[in-house]
Amino acid sequence: MTTIATTARERMLLAKDASRSIGLLDDATKREALLAIADAIAAGQAEIVDANGEDLARGRESGLSEALQDRLRLDAPRVAALAAAVRDIAELPDPVGRVLDERTLANGVTLTKVAVPFGVVGSIYEARPNVTVDIAALALRSGNAVVLRGGSAAARTNAALVSAMRGALADRGLDPEAIQTIDDFGRDGARELMHARGVVDVLVPRGSAQLIETVVTESSVPVIETGAGIVHIVLDESAPLEWARDIVVNAKTQRPSVCNAVETVLVLRGAAQRLVPPVVAALQASGVTVHGDDSVLGLADGVTAATDEDWSTEYLSLDIAMRVVDDLDVALDHIRRYSTHHTESIITQDSANEARFLAEVDSAVVMANTSTRFTDGGEFGFGAEVGISTQKLHARGPMGLAELTSTKWLARGAGQVRA
Amino acid sequence: MTTIATTARERMLLAKDASRSIGLLDDATKREALLAIADAIAAGQAEIVDANGEDLARGRESGLSEALQDRLRLDAPRVAALAAAVRDIAELPDPVGRVLDERTLANGVTLTKVAVPFGVVGSIYEARPNVTVDIAALALRSGNAVVLRGGSAAARTNAALVSAMRGALADRGLDPEAIQTIDDFGRDGARELMHARGVVDVLVPRGSAQLIETVVTESSVPVIETGAGIVHIVLDESAPLEWARDIVVNAKTQRPSVCNAVETVLVLRGAAQRLVPPVVAALQASGVTVHGDDSVLGLADGVTAATDEDWSTEYLSLDIAMRVVDDLDVALDHIRRYSTHHTESIITQDSANEARFLAEVDSAVVMANTSTRFTDGGEFGFGAEVGISTQKLHARGPMGLAELTSTKWLARGAGQVRA
Repeated sequence: MTTIATTARERMLLAKDASRSIGLLDDATKREALLAIADAIAAGQAEIVDANGEDLARGRESGLSEALQDRLRLDAPRVAALAAAVRDIAELPDPVGRVLDERTLANGVTLTKVAVPFGVVGSIYEARPNVTVDIAALALRSGNAVVLRGGSAAARTNAALVSAMRGALADRGLDPEAIQTIDDFGRDGARELMHARGVVDVLVPRGSAQLIETVVTESSVPVIETGAGIVHIVLDESAPLEWARDIVVNAKTQRPSVCNAVETVLVLRGAAQRLVPPVVAALQASGVTVHGDDSVLGLADGVTAATDEDWSTEYLSLDIAMRVVDDLDVALDHIRRYSTHHTESIITQDSANEARFLAEVDSAVVMANTSTRFTDGGEFGFGAEVGISTQKLHARGPMGLAELTSTKWLARGAGQVRA
Repeated sequence: MTTIATTARERMLLAKDASRSIGLLDDATKREALLAIADAIAAGQAEIVDANGEDLARGRESGLSEALQDRLRLDAPRVAALAAAVRDIAELPDPVGRVLDERTLANGVTLTKVAVPFGVVGSIYEARPNVTVDIAALALRSGNAVVLRGGSAAARTNAALVSAMRGALADRGLDPEAIQTIDDFGRDGARELMHARGVVDVLVPRGSAQLIETVVTESSVPVIETGAGIVHIVLDESAPLEWARDIVVNAKTQRPSVCNAVETVLVLRGAAQRLVPPVVAALQASGVTVHGDDSVLGLADGVTAATDEDWSTEYLSLDIAMRVVDDLDVALDHIRRYSTHHTESIITQDSANEARFLAEVDSAVVMANTSTRFTDGGEFGFGAEVGISTQKLHARGPMGLAELTSTKWLARGAGQVRA
């Protein structure tokens, strides 16, 4: 599938046009389209892996790090996994058409608020080919067209994936223009996407904090911010040792590189002597470097002295910051100052402190007595995750397909006029 | 109440700080605070009218039009009306704390999605003192602090109103810093407000299309766009004459200056001979100037020839554009091209055409057989209206208090960790 559109803007307009027919598709047609896309990706494995090989070769030449090369790499099993992920999204319930509110006015006019597709979803992300397939599948399943702008390091891979997906749509008689990539227009294309207000309905950046900051600052298209996580766990005076230890270790080590991993532990002074030594020991036994304040240094061995920078660092590694605080107020102040409003948890058996924490912490997900690693669309039962929103408008926390829909009021009357 | 904050930024930070205590107030306390504010506005009538007199004198000197002077003017009955509007808002149900979703994970962790205040609501608007009171009352009722930036022409009036409202909060032991005005910092203050991401949670511009466009383009704070209305009514071949005539006349003349008034009527060719003459005559009898295309000119007397500009004009006056179109497809194309996605209505007795129109028109409110003037928070039963959103993110159509809230997931466990 080659496209004749020669500018990024033209491709966005093609997506806008395609969004009209895609938005009207019924549940079964969208499901079948996604299954066809999964088949096309699986069938196109050889071409996709070849294209990826070209990107990898280019990456090696330009000195791309091993870690980034691994993120970029698609081999046969990874392509199969992409296809399987699309099949999972195909089986999710259709978020379009849900009735969200119903009212009948005194004059007999009926009002129905229904979920409708946004229209065109844009995404700007880094060189992870899985995002290309993921966002396209989620957008289509919710009746949206999509404009993709991935990292230039993955441009050939993305082109092969998009070509397979567009081919599957065309084969089923659906408009292939519903999936657009603008990788070939470089930064100018990204800039045009960020300013395509009226053509692109919502923009979802995915990637580093810096990429998200750029999109949030520059875009005039409405953005859903999927943000970084400087995540806190507070150990209250009443925290049971076993919960405190198991939850902190799980939240740090179960997958350290993701946004819902804990970065800072705040221990109330009254519990410090009881909790700090065993929690630090358990972390160290799992290979974690603990960066502690003076109180922590005084209570446990092998702790690195924390600097102010530690409190505002998203390690994404086997490092954790730990501070002893005088009381819950100081803990809440610390969180207010350093949190990225993603997820915070308190370990406590004091119901008053639990209630205060849940009410006062201003984050997308606020927890008591459980691991911050549960902040996840899959864990929440959404079946898929578009991202985790750290903003307050439209969506907050893990986003599923429902968050890729807007609403529309339908009003039906029989000649009523306003008095 | 004078404030010691000397920069716009400092005032926004004071609002952010105050939002913490305001956000935790219970329903009764917020209701009583609003009643106290209403009393303070009523009691401050003389000072408010005096301050308004200074603004009016300044306006007259600088050549402010009669219409704008009228919009700016506050006399005793208008101040009383402001206080009454605040009392109405006081009696609305609290939108905070509503449970929007509940889930229990297989491991026993319970999830509750609750409505929470945004935090700080900002508003940029023109010289209408009623907006100052309206937005402040709506923000407080939904547990938010507010930063107000009204037109400089109303600066003294706004200062008097804000002073009365802040005094009422302080008298009740609530933090007066929850209401801030930054009128005295001019355009620099507005610019700072638009870039106060992380301090101000949402910005609601109210006023002209140009003001809204500026805010949408420049702001890095998330914006809820309350937009202009180029509103269409389609007269289908099956439209009953009486409904067509009464609804078009009502939608144009009941209040021509507002965004939900109709601006363009599209008549299907098969009904043109039957409908155009009596609808045009009824409009003319109500003082409306009809700007018609060639077909309309051929069917009715006293019609002005429409130019292309008419289709993209929000008259906000006793003018209406009318075009005869070949079929529903052409009508839908016309709407796609010129609509501002606010409200459109079809008059029809053909259920297939009604269903197509409701499904395919991409506007906040899509109607069949009723007047576009019903697109209104009050008419929808919301009790108050923050504005009418023409964007697709977060809120679409008339916004009530619920649209001034965000959400938060509360997770409660008993030591669960992720496997």
